[in-house]
Amino acid sequence: MAENKQLGKQSVKFAHPPFIRGAASVVGTKEAEGPYGQYFDEVEQDPMAGGDSWEEAEGKFQERAAELAIKKAGCKTEDMRYIVAGDLLGQLMASSFGLIKLERPLFGVYGACSTMGESLAIASIITEGGFADNVLALTSSHFASAEKQFRFPLGYANQRNKSATWTVTGSGAVVVSAESEEKNKVHIVGITTGKIIDYGIKDNMNMGACMAPAAADAIIQHFIDFGYSSGQYDKIITGDLGLVGKDILIDIIRARGYDISENYMDCGIEIYGKEQNVQSGGSGCGCSAVMLTGYILKMLESMKWKRVLFVPTGALLSQVSFNEGNSVPGIAHAILLERR
Amino acid sequence: MAENKQLGKQSVKFAHPPFIRGAASVVGTKEAEGPYGQYFDEVEQDPMAGGDSWEEAEGKFQERAAELAIKKAGCKTEDMRYIVAGDLLGQLMASSFGLIKLERPLFGVYGACSTMGESLAIASIITEGGFADNVLALTSSHFASAEKQFRFPLGYANQRNKSATWTVTGSGAVVVSAESEEKNKVHIVGITTGKIIDYGIKDNMNMGACMAPAAADAIIQHFIDFGYSSGQYDKIITGDLGLVGKDILIDIIRARGYDISENYMDCGIEIYGKEQNVQSGGSGCGCSAVMLTGYILKMLESMKWKRVLFVPTGALLSQVSFNEGNSVPGIAHAILLERR
Repeated sequence: MAENKQLGKQSVKFAHPPFIRGAASVVGTKEAEGPYGQYFDEVEQDPMAGGDSWEEAEGKFQERAAELAIKKAGCKTEDMRYIVAGDLLGQLMASSFGLIKLERPLFGVYGACSTMGESLAIASIITEGGFADNVLALTSSHFASAEKQFRFPLGYANQRNKSATWTVTGSGAVVVSAESEEKNKVHIVGITTGKIIDYGIKDNMNMGACMAPAAADAIIQHFIDFGYSSGQYDKIITGDLGLVGKDILIDIIRARGYDISENYMDCGIEIYGKEQNVQSGGSGCGCSAVMLTGYILKMLESMKWKRVLFVPTGALLSQVSFNEGNSVPGIAHAILLERR
Repeated sequence: MAENKQLGKQSVKFAHPPFIRGAASVVGTKEAEGPYGQYFDEVEQDPMAGGDSWEEAEGKFQERAAELAIKKAGCKTEDMRYIVAGDLLGQLMASSFGLIKLERPLFGVYGACSTMGESLAIASIITEGGFADNVLALTSSHFASAEKQFRFPLGYANQRNKSATWTVTGSGAVVVSAESEEKNKVHIVGITTGKIIDYGIKDNMNMGACMAPAAADAIIQHFIDFGYSSGQYDKIITGDLGLVGKDILIDIIRARGYDISENYMDCGIEIYGKEQNVQSGGSGCGCSAVMLTGYILKMLESMKWKRVLFVPTGALLSQVSFNEGNSVPGIAHAILLERR
């Protein structure tokens, strides 16, 4: 019988925490021009990334991030026992086409923009359970493929409202490896897997409001399960709530007796500068993925931060569900990262 | 350090195999009228399942299969530590809306019609690794939502060619539980996780041909990793290759030195009768899911079979990738089931 690693209602505390052996971020030019531009590993100047369609372009971002993460981990592609990957496109086309050349066993995952949290959680479970030495976890998004998928073709040049977000063009990839003797690494110490939370909000131009209740639910459950309070983290970082979602999140959490306002950060708010005209901030699977691999892990590696709660946030909608008048439920997955 | 459960290049052999505590199948009327109709747990007479859209209908099939599987397992919803679920719709809308009420931590997965294999694999890894006592793994498909998603609106009444398949309306759900003292149960003994295999086939009306190479790859790798030959299984069962894909699969495997023709079965070929006018057979995530939960597990439970290799097969396409002229790569995941 395996060791029981369950913690509280919804969490896992890893008995032998897996660590991040290597990570890479590949972004587009708009992301490179933002305040975190210097942190990203590679900048692709061509929005099509040499491809023939936006979907193919997004797949090429994944391919490059995957190859670079594997290289930075000091590994070969064959060392990856599994890939856990997903994206926002219908039927995960960026992953399905972007990862063909890697020829590795694949678990395709979908958690909307929370996908980086889901792929890290599953990769951690696989490695910590002894099922693999190394697992590649990655995700991507692309402004143009996402606008085409969820909103309007770019050629319409439609206006964007204040609560709208700008989908990040980029891919972040992480090699998660089983416990080793190596020190000075960022470890995945625990996970709190989110539930679908539906507050009945129906505005696909206000995804922050749709996702904030799910983020609050995951963060509060994480506090309860681990017995920590908000002050015990250097940062609590959500994926892409944006300016509107941020306020809602802090308010919901405050109403539950916790205050995260002091050490809270949202990848979507951070990734672009105010002058970049992105309304409520950045969004997309790639947003939290490139901020994790580009910035957050570097802050942990350099010991500026020691403990971070990374909480990618997803809005569960499709163009069909939206046009049929459904609400937009949210989901969020919390990943506890520690520099050890 | 966790026990190493890796086997060969691509497989896991569980040290303490998880078992199937309960399973349920909910199907539509066409499936109930087929040769396996008597085996399915519930038949929904209304194709809309009381919903307002085909997508909502598919979600309701998932909800019912989930509730029934949990009940048949003798569990409560709260006993499910995780749900691992997916479907064919863009952004997994059937799972996202169908599973809201269950309020359990969710890993959304996508492997096209191989999704039941993927969800069983991840559920097994989670339970065997000590991360949960019970995990609910499920998937669904719906003829009308799939036609709308991938082909033509039903109102067009378009003709179907000989190699086309008919998407199964139904959902299959399984409660996977950690090793216990219970005997006389079907155990998940091992898994062989598939890679994306692309033979460059571009015909979305001939998905069997797209998926057969991936199924062959997973089955042969499974034989190699486990050191078994085809005669050591009572049945080797693919998801939805249909009549065209079956011949291709047997030929590819024969060329590699194995003969599975004697004990081979395809859920897609079996699920409908010849008089039901379904061309090459059934397909969809729900096809292998309801045949597993309706028929295959019952054959194992009653000791008619002792060892089955269950290999759901997926075609990785979207309406966008197809219309952009891309090929249709395949993926397949092999699950080794034994009655113990």
